[in-house]
Amino acid sequence: MVADITRASTDTVKVSAWAGLRVQGDRLLQRIDDLAQIGAIAGGGVCRLALTDADKAGRDQVVQWMRELGLSLTIDGIGNVVGTWAGTADLPPVMTGSHIDTVATGGRYDGNFGVLAGLEVIQTLQTAGVRLRHPLAVAFFTNEEGAGFHPDMMGSMVYQGSLSLADAWATTAHDGSTVEENLRRIGYLGEAPCGHNTLHGFVELHVEQGPVMEQEGITIGAVTGVQGMSWVEYTVQGVSNHAGTTPMRLRHDAGYVAMAIALAARELTHAMGGNQVATVGSMRLHPNLVNVIPNTAVFTLDLRNTDEGLLQEAEHRMAEKIRAIAQAEGVEITSRSLVRLQPVAFDPAMIQLVETTAQTLGFSTQRFPSGAGHDAGILAAQCPTAMIFVPSVAGISHNVKEYTAPEDLLAGANVLLHTLLQLAL
Amino acid sequence: MVADITRASTDTVKVSAWAGLRVQGDRLLQRIDDLAQIGAIAGGGVCRLALTDADKAGRDQVVQWMRELGLSLTIDGIGNVVGTWAGTADLPPVMTGSHIDTVATGGRYDGNFGVLAGLEVIQTLQTAGVRLRHPLAVAFFTNEEGAGFHPDMMGSMVYQGSLSLADAWATTAHDGSTVEENLRRIGYLGEAPCGHNTLHGFVELHVEQGPVMEQEGITIGAVTGVQGMSWVEYTVQGVSNHAGTTPMRLRHDAGYVAMAIALAARELTHAMGGNQVATVGSMRLHPNLVNVIPNTAVFTLDLRNTDEGLLQEAEHRMAEKIRAIAQAEGVEITSRSLVRLQPVAFDPAMIQLVETTAQTLGFSTQRFPSGAGHDAGILAAQCPTAMIFVPSVAGISHNVKEYTAPEDLLAGANVLLHTLLQLAL
Repeated sequence: MVADITRASTDTVKVSAWAGLRVQGDRLLQRIDDLAQIGAIAGGGVCRLALTDADKAGRDQVVQWMRELGLSLTIDGIGNVVGTWAGTADLPPVMTGSHIDTVATGGRYDGNFGVLAGLEVIQTLQTAGVRLRHPLAVAFFTNEEGAGFHPDMMGSMVYQGSLSLADAWATTAHDGSTVEENLRRIGYLGEAPCGHNTLHGFVELHVEQGPVMEQEGITIGAVTGVQGMSWVEYTVQGVSNHAGTTPMRLRHDAGYVAMAIALAARELTHAMGGNQVATVGSMRLHPNLVNVIPNTAVFTLDLRNTDEGLLQEAEHRMAEKIRAIAQAEGVEITSRSLVRLQPVAFDPAMIQLVETTAQTLGFSTQRFPSGAGHDAGILAAQCPTAMIFVPSVAGISHNVKEYTAPEDLLAGANVLLHTLLQLAL
Repeated sequence: MVADITRASTDTVKVSAWAGLRVQGDRLLQRIDDLAQIGAIAGGGVCRLALTDADKAGRDQVVQWMRELGLSLTIDGIGNVVGTWAGTADLPPVMTGSHIDTVATGGRYDGNFGVLAGLEVIQTLQTAGVRLRHPLAVAFFTNEEGAGFHPDMMGSMVYQGSLSLADAWATTAHDGSTVEENLRRIGYLGEAPCGHNTLHGFVELHVEQGPVMEQEGITIGAVTGVQGMSWVEYTVQGVSNHAGTTPMRLRHDAGYVAMAIALAARELTHAMGGNQVATVGSMRLHPNLVNVIPNTAVFTLDLRNTDEGLLQEAEHRMAEKIRAIAQAEGVEITSRSLVRLQPVAFDPAMIQLVETTAQTLGFSTQRFPSGAGHDAGILAAQCPTAMIFVPSVAGISHNVKEYTAPEDLLAGANVLLHTLLQLAL
């Protein structure tokens, strides 16, 4: 497979013939701006929750652009839309793409950028008269964000086959309506089959959604994989008592225990180092009064690592600390797993291809893992997969303030162009 | 004043004549039970929030009992009710009492016990034909709990003079109605003057509301004073970011900072020892999501000590720790004081009197500070004051499960009887 992907060597002449090709920046930026008008919210952000009317309007716009480029369209049972530009040979397609649904307070780049850059790459290639051996497809996958229907990355999971269409259809939103009903309502319940696709490779271009590239002054990230993730909700059951009359030695303070565990998680990240991260993002105390020792604390712990062995080590070390802290304070702790995903490692040759392409184009580049989940993390189980990151200013994402400078957007689109060219020529 | 209070030596013969006197237990327990029927809630508890119809009904019942004992009644402008049994000499009254308002999930003993034990003491003395030189008064003070109107101990503060009647009247509840309106509505806005009372001494009998006496196996607590209290609300302002994409070193996690401060407070209590307590009872994170680093944490810190110098030391040491923790994480912290009360030390001769009386009656006794605020803590600024504690099972209070064994209630009432006898004969 590595040999196949890096087959570029045999086509060196053909690739080098197009070495000077660049995307048309204004056109790409205009499409990003146009799509951001659909579901626009104050502050320059976008709200197009999956399977809503706004999502339908966004989908219709992108479909119209796909048609204008002469792509052949398929819509599958979960509403994934794939626009394909035919190749000259009977070969499996090279695919790029991402998603166009957003969170409620979304930015304009998350997902959308990758999809629209894919269209721009095809238009650039078409305009230049390039003919590819492989078909080149641009996809947008349904409900990547999981803001209304769980799980996130629903569309790519059904596409790849790890989630059944029946299960996805049966998923309900807060209002009780199902994914199937909403797909039908917005006219995106298609007939193309799911879970039986063959791809030559998949490349997703995305904003980093984190602060590392900006801090390091890097323009192009060659993404090595997606972090594994362990989300656990803990419930600490202690005893409420008067904050004035209860000596410290007689307390069973559920809040204290929750907070001590949060600090132990922070200490664990120092002890383990590497890219181990730990976050206590949510906590509720009961009765949550200034002068009453909390009898209950419910909190979440989010642990991530790019290495499954290390993630398991983090889980085990936390379990031990939690046991010790609970025992010392005389409280009961129960837990339930919310999410557990193994790390994804992208194809080494694909990572290398992105890195070399970025260097050839003169961009600073570095290898990074992705801390967030992406459709590419799902597709990696199906075909050689890579991701290209561009910096997010101040690491802000899922926020109307999400921003990536135009020159970084264009750098990413040009790296996508030449990466796809080498895969598909 | 000490000489005056312990004047008992000159009346040794008179006091010893009544040494065998005991309260009538069934009568006291029956009154506790009867009063608990008014505003009764599931589980054996009581809800008689100050100035509600239930409070009025409870007041009417106690006033009826006072009238049945032939006490002369006064009701002052803040609704404090004082029933006085005349003495044989023109001397300032000895007063006992407490409150009959409850929290929303109150028990039947908190406050009520002290008031009804006071009535029982008078009835016991009357029945035995005792004649006291000092008038003996039983008071119940308005809104000790502060559950609907702030501050708590409102009635005793107005009685003692540290809160003006006008300010107390103007206080509003959540529904916008004032204390004055509600006093008028329930018929307890009286005409007796506030803030100009002279008392020979005040003794409050109360359940401990904490677990220490039960743990130590003590029947009678000779209360040394009321802890000083420092309540501060802190707001930590950090930066929200993605829990997966943000390396630990680039975080400004408001939740982590709040929790680290809570742990520092716990460590402070170990370092300072003594009766220093610290509680983080309430905390709210924003946006409070599993995979988002909190940008804001609002939490309270409740520090208490019986010694003002040590309480100030605790405040200063926490301020330094808070500064250091905030600086290390790169977050801003603002604070506002919610409550700051200096410790109250009861009169040494009065404490001694309670202790000696308990010993004479054959009860185990020990000196304890009170961790909770009480009307006696306010009255202490006005006259020689003491408190008598009886144990609370498992330290539970402000809870329908509040319980004190009948034999402990009667022990407390008998210590109150003989303490008042020595003060008033």
